[in-house]
Amino acid sequence: MRVGIGQINPHVGAMQKNADAILGAIAEARAEGCDLVVFPELAVCGYIPLDLMWKPGFVAACERAIDRIREATRGITVIVGSITSQPAQEGINRFDLSSISDGAATCLHNTAYLLKDGVTAGMVHKTHLPCYDIYNEKRYFSPAPGVEVHPICGTTCGINICEDLWIDDGPTELQASLGAEWIINISASPYYTGKPAIRHRLAVKRASQNGVGVVYVNLVGGQDDVVFDGGSFVVNPDGRLVFQAPRVKEGLFCVDLDLAKPVPAPAGDPVTEVRDILTLGIRDYVTKNGFSSVLLGLSGGIDSALVAALATDALGPETVTGIFMPSMFSSDESREDARATAEGLGIHYLEISIAELHETLRAALPQLPGGLVDENIQPRLRGIVLMAMANQRHALVLAPGNKSEIAVGYSTLYGDTVGALAPIADLYKDDVVRLTRLYGSRIPQRVITKPPTAELRPDQRDDEDLPPYDVLDPILRALIETGASRQQLVARGFAEPLVDDVIRRYYVNEYKRRQLPPGIKITPKAFGIGRRMPITNGYRD
Amino acid sequence: MRVGIGQINPHVGAMQKNADAILGAIAEARAEGCDLVVFPELAVCGYIPLDLMWKPGFVAACERAIDRIREATRGITVIVGSITSQPAQEGINRFDLSSISDGAATCLHNTAYLLKDGVTAGMVHKTHLPCYDIYNEKRYFSPAPGVEVHPICGTTCGINICEDLWIDDGPTELQASLGAEWIINISASPYYTGKPAIRHRLAVKRASQNGVGVVYVNLVGGQDDVVFDGGSFVVNPDGRLVFQAPRVKEGLFCVDLDLAKPVPAPAGDPVTEVRDILTLGIRDYVTKNGFSSVLLGLSGGIDSALVAALATDALGPETVTGIFMPSMFSSDESREDARATAEGLGIHYLEISIAELHETLRAALPQLPGGLVDENIQPRLRGIVLMAMANQRHALVLAPGNKSEIAVGYSTLYGDTVGALAPIADLYKDDVVRLTRLYGSRIPQRVITKPPTAELRPDQRDDEDLPPYDVLDPILRALIETGASRQQLVARGFAEPLVDDVIRRYYVNEYKRRQLPPGIKITPKAFGIGRRMPITNGYRD
Repeated sequence: MRVGIGQINPHVGAMQKNADAILGAIAEARAEGCDLVVFPELAVCGYIPLDLMWKPGFVAACERAIDRIREATRGITVIVGSITSQPAQEGINRFDLSSISDGAATCLHNTAYLLKDGVTAGMVHKTHLPCYDIYNEKRYFSPAPGVEVHPICGTTCGINICEDLWIDDGPTELQASLGAEWIINISASPYYTGKPAIRHRLAVKRASQNGVGVVYVNLVGGQDDVVFDGGSFVVNPDGRLVFQAPRVKEGLFCVDLDLAKPVPAPAGDPVTEVRDILTLGIRDYVTKNGFSSVLLGLSGGIDSALVAALATDALGPETVTGIFMPSMFSSDESREDARATAEGLGIHYLEISIAELHETLRAALPQLPGGLVDENIQPRLRGIVLMAMANQRHALVLAPGNKSEIAVGYSTLYGDTVGALAPIADLYKDDVVRLTRLYGSRIPQRVITKPPTAELRPDQRDDEDLPPYDVLDPILRALIETGASRQQLVARGFAEPLVDDVIRRYYVNEYKRRQLPPGIKITPKAFGIGRRMPITNGYRD
Repeated sequence: MRVGIGQINPHVGAMQKNADAILGAIAEARAEGCDLVVFPELAVCGYIPLDLMWKPGFVAACERAIDRIREATRGITVIVGSITSQPAQEGINRFDLSSISDGAATCLHNTAYLLKDGVTAGMVHKTHLPCYDIYNEKRYFSPAPGVEVHPICGTTCGINICEDLWIDDGPTELQASLGAEWIINISASPYYTGKPAIRHRLAVKRASQNGVGVVYVNLVGGQDDVVFDGGSFVVNPDGRLVFQAPRVKEGLFCVDLDLAKPVPAPAGDPVTEVRDILTLGIRDYVTKNGFSSVLLGLSGGIDSALVAALATDALGPETVTGIFMPSMFSSDESREDARATAEGLGIHYLEISIAELHETLRAALPQLPGGLVDENIQPRLRGIVLMAMANQRHALVLAPGNKSEIAVGYSTLYGDTVGALAPIADLYKDDVVRLTRLYGSRIPQRVITKPPTAELRPDQRDDEDLPPYDVLDPILRALIETGASRQQLVARGFAEPLVDDVIRRYYVNEYKRRQLPPGIKITPKAFGIGRRMPITNGYRD
């Protein structure tokens, strides 16, 4: 059986455009002699349209797209993800449904269509609906009532969807017991560091334990907070990887299941992996939202330099503008470094001073104290300048905040947090350094090595306001990534006053995080939609 | 049976403080001769701590609070909501749980404890876990395996939790069939317009159809985006309201179930109801977050006047500061109206001109065009001034945006959207007018009657930039509250170009809504956590 893996990059909600891409891949697969073409989970509507799915017209548009795709399956078999609806909710009626102005009265499924010769040969609904992290599928979908297998091109296949493969003693085992020789799993699996290797281990385990092959087909592309990294693959029934599609790249990839020979697992350096993810995330966010250029404040520091470099690779240097906005506290060194960064990357460079504005504003405000109040004014003036320049050029602003800063609120809301997207919001400061080193001579060495400073007062350094990052980052990682308690942090050897200070900063800055632009997820626990915290909260542990 | 209804206002995550309030109410109930005291859903931890519940220490803190409460139940029966955990997930194991750094491995329940004479006499878990609108309970909780009834003070009672009462042929019917004479429903039911009357109809239906009485105990208080309005009540087994606790007010309210006589249902004017909800929402947001004063920009227009009036009633006039920030386009009329509003409400009033700042900024920006780019600068300068003044006074900023503006993005991000809370974010412009009229002479008549303007260019009026609000609001209501499609809007008689314009504005401004402060929900479909939309989205219907 020759299989085409349609690793496509859909645009959420653009069903017609997505169907066009799917039809193109089917035509290509036919020309390549494929018997079967497989597309990812929700390929027709993108992952995930959220509450849009409750609009009856949305489901109808998905069905029209499926009608077009079905017509194109004469002489070929296609598996493709979409949503389906049933008129009434199964078994449960609620008093006064009219007051719930959303989909409580509709029963949606996350479905894999099996299309063949112009007809629907099967519809497989997702069984296990994840509701942790960024997932919220029980809000929308009802689970499948059971599992089944299908004859496809002379073999018996078990089709299942994303999470279904991850459940031990789940659909895969049942499908194997029903005679499946191959499991076709269609996924929309977003990236975090290490995830590609975890997926391989998962498929190898399922294959070896059940004597089935696994065709794993993943989505590719950026959608707001997450990036789907593609990297579809095939593991044969003896548990060996026999095909590996590229990461972060759209395309149709063909493989003969009966002829495929073992291939080595890709090495997967996590730093370059993250760079590629962020680059795709920026590109897709900007272009899918109808923009083609970006700008950002270049401070001469490492965070903005890294964001500029990522944007340059994502969109091309001619579309990126870096603006250095000196205040009375900015050093010559910062100007040199900002300019050298722009030159190294080949992007546009502007200087717009905020010093006079800062003076005028100080004079306008009655009894303005110094200190933090005055320090916050400067990034906010820069925010205004950036937004004015962006409005003028129909460009998007990229925000430079990193995860360490965001975790402790070391940023000025409406100031350096301004932007449509925060590309490195899920990178701790040490990740930022590692990633920046990849750019070699395109970013000046001094940008990487000098002590971080916000330059909001004379001779300021981050490590006067915060614990040094090599102390702070391990505490934050334990607190955020593993949910460590105060007691556990102290038991790990961190000083109690330090732990209390970090915990306090972490909790009281929830209000800032609520108003941030989306960041791009690269860890299992990113700020944003996958982490839901109350602002008003008396808990400190 | 004499029942005390402990209509308390918990602080999310402050288990010790909440337990103190519960212990105080138990002592009061004992003094009042109650046999039973009932507290709302999740009274111990507040509704809802979201991902905090996944911290093992959080559950342990709830258990310690329950231990203290249990000790206080000698000679009295207490029903109180909290969370409980079981060590392992029931039935489902997932590959590589370690990569899910949250509660996927823990099984939590939303539980009603039945405590009596110092022991736990029962634990009832919630059966129906809502996942629509603001609710996300399947993310956290597992459902009860079944329903049961309990002997309480000589009667047979069915305890159930919030949504359980709303399900037709659900726990209430089963409990009635098991012999329940009274249903004790503990709820955390947030307000929207009309909800109190819907709850009455629900309880009357359950009582009449099953021959059971219903004791409905609701939470009170504001939590970020929502306000729980209290209004607990009792319906007797023949379906008549026999007790009604006050709305938006904390307290212990006692009722003799056997002696209670029918009382009239409260009239419930929706406009004053909404005013009271917003007032409580502001008060709780500000005080529970450790602040005692607020400030806001007073433009002389109706939105900021209403927010100032609500804040005044919430916190007292001495804690509210209104700042008029004229630009070169501000009229004398606006100054007079801003000042008269502040005087009418008795709040502090300041004037800080942004005209000179605006000039300086225009000069600093290269080739700044006029039009929208220049118009956006003015609210952003005002945002800086407000934040500086707020930082200086340890005050919170209130944002004046209404639902009509937010729906079509008629606002400047980082400008008039700046704030910790947007109290009227869920009021359409016509709601704003109705509510403002309640304040009589405290708000100048002209503020209500003059045509709305943003005053960002000479002689600007909102209805030059937007359809007039009496045209816009009905379209927005259909689009947002009922999910109407383009075709449905046109069928209702709205002109096609108008419909297309409003739909376009509505969708392309999702990025702004993502960065807004929390608003206070007063409709079934508020922007914010109960409405989840992708930013990147190709759908326009």
